[in-house]
This record gives sequence, structure tokens and C-alpha cells, in this order.
Amino acid sequence: MQVLKSSSAELAPEFGILAGRWSQYTGLGSVPFDAMWCVVPPGGRSNTDRHPERELAVIVQGAADVHVGGRAERAPAGTAVLLDSEEAHVLVNPSADDPLVVLSIYWLPGGQEQTAATAAGSADGS
Amino acid sequence: MQVLKSSSAELAPEFGILAGRWSQYTGLGSVPFDAMWCVVPPGGRSNTDRHPERELAVIVQGAADVHVGGRAERAPAGTAVLLDSEEAHVLVNPSADDPLVVLSIYWLPGGQEQTAATAAGSADGS
Repeated sequence: MQVLKSSSAELAPEFGILAGRWSQYTGLGSVPFDAMWCVVPPGGRSNTDRHPERELAVIVQGAADVHVGGRAERAPAGTAVLLDSEEAHVLVNPSADDPLVVLSIYWLPGGQEQTAATAAGSADGS
Repeated sequence: MQVLKSSSAELAPEFGILAGRWSQYTGLGSVPFDAMWCVVPPGGRSNTDRHPERELAVIVQGAADVHVGGRAERAPAGTAVLLDSEEAHVLVNPSADDPLVVLSIYWLPGGQEQTAATAAGSADGS
């Protein structure tokens, strides 16, 4: 068991917010994705981010307004937002008081990553 | 963008708690892991779980005491607990008032899943 806490992670300014890349952790072993903590201060917002990796943004503290295209979705803690490759997105913390903490999990699509559960719900049949 | 909320997920009794397997979602496309929401009521605890998959248990609401072997770790929201294959574990909700919500992400180890960031911190050099 390894216990990884956002509250004690090493954070650095990135994307207009604070990011704690999981490359700071040793001994994680074999994991099929990369990850980072994202901390958005009260009233803060990330720069627009866009990348070839798919991303699962898991809100673990506070609430986010996730902006994609002209659409914004309120995502409180306990929500996971799945973003496609090259889908430009902005994380906004609408709270004046509470920080927003997100665990961003990301991976390059294609290849061997299809799993049983996701295959059942696959939109593209791959 | 797909917004997946634990608060509106379909849950069913499993492992002594409530589980919302992500196979309920359609159109997720290609994802390198399986996932489920786990909801532990106040004062509740899961059965002992043990499986060949590695697991990343992300606490998204409340706090967990994660028991592995003789060891227990307090994991508040904003914590991710990485479990090895066949590592027997129990999730306990120590709160008398607040539910515990965990996003459990799991995958079979081995194969193509090594990524750049995790390779940097790999304990076993694989």
C-alpha cells in the first residue's frame, strides 16, 4: 500500500495553477497512466489546456466548473470528467473560499488499453 | 466531455458496501483501466477484498481508514491509495455522520502499461 496525499505533494506553478506531477513519487511500479494533482486556488482558473492524451479529471475537493468549447459543467467533489484527445479545456474554481483539488489521470489512446468493462460501453466499437 | 457523477450513479450492494461499476456508462471509448464508485455509509466497512488487479483507490468524499495487513492508514478526500495485486484490503468509514465515496480504478498488471512518468519512479525497473 502506498498512500499519496495531495495535501503533502510537491506542487509547482504550471498551466496557471499548481500541479503536482506523480513523477515525484518513487516505486509506483507498473501503472497504465500518468497522473498529477491540480490545485486551483479560490477564484482561480487554469490556462486553456489541450493535448493528445485522453484525460480523466477526478474532483477530490471543492467544485470545478469545467469549460469545454462553449459548454461549462459544474463538477463537485465525487465527479469524474472524461476528456477526449485534443479537447481544449479550462478548470475554474467558482468558490471564493475553498480550494479546488483535482486528480488528473491521462494516457495516450490507442493500442492495448481496451478493458472488458469499457469495451461493453465503447462508442466506436474499437 | 463526459461528466460522471457518483451522486447519480447506479449503485448495487457488493463487497458489503455499495458499488457503482463504470460498465453502466456507455461511450467511454478507450480507457486503460476499469473503475467503480464505492460508497461506504457512516460507520460502515467493506468486506475484505483481494484480487489480481492493482488498484488505485481515490478518496473523493469523506475519509477512509484503509486496512492492509496489520496496518491502517487514514486517507481523507484528496488522497489516492495504491494497492498491489493480491493485497487484501478493507475500506472503513470512521465517520458517524458522513458517507465515504471512493473512486476505485483497477487494471491487470503486466504488458504494455508502463508510462514515462511511472517508469521514472519504478521500483522494479520493469
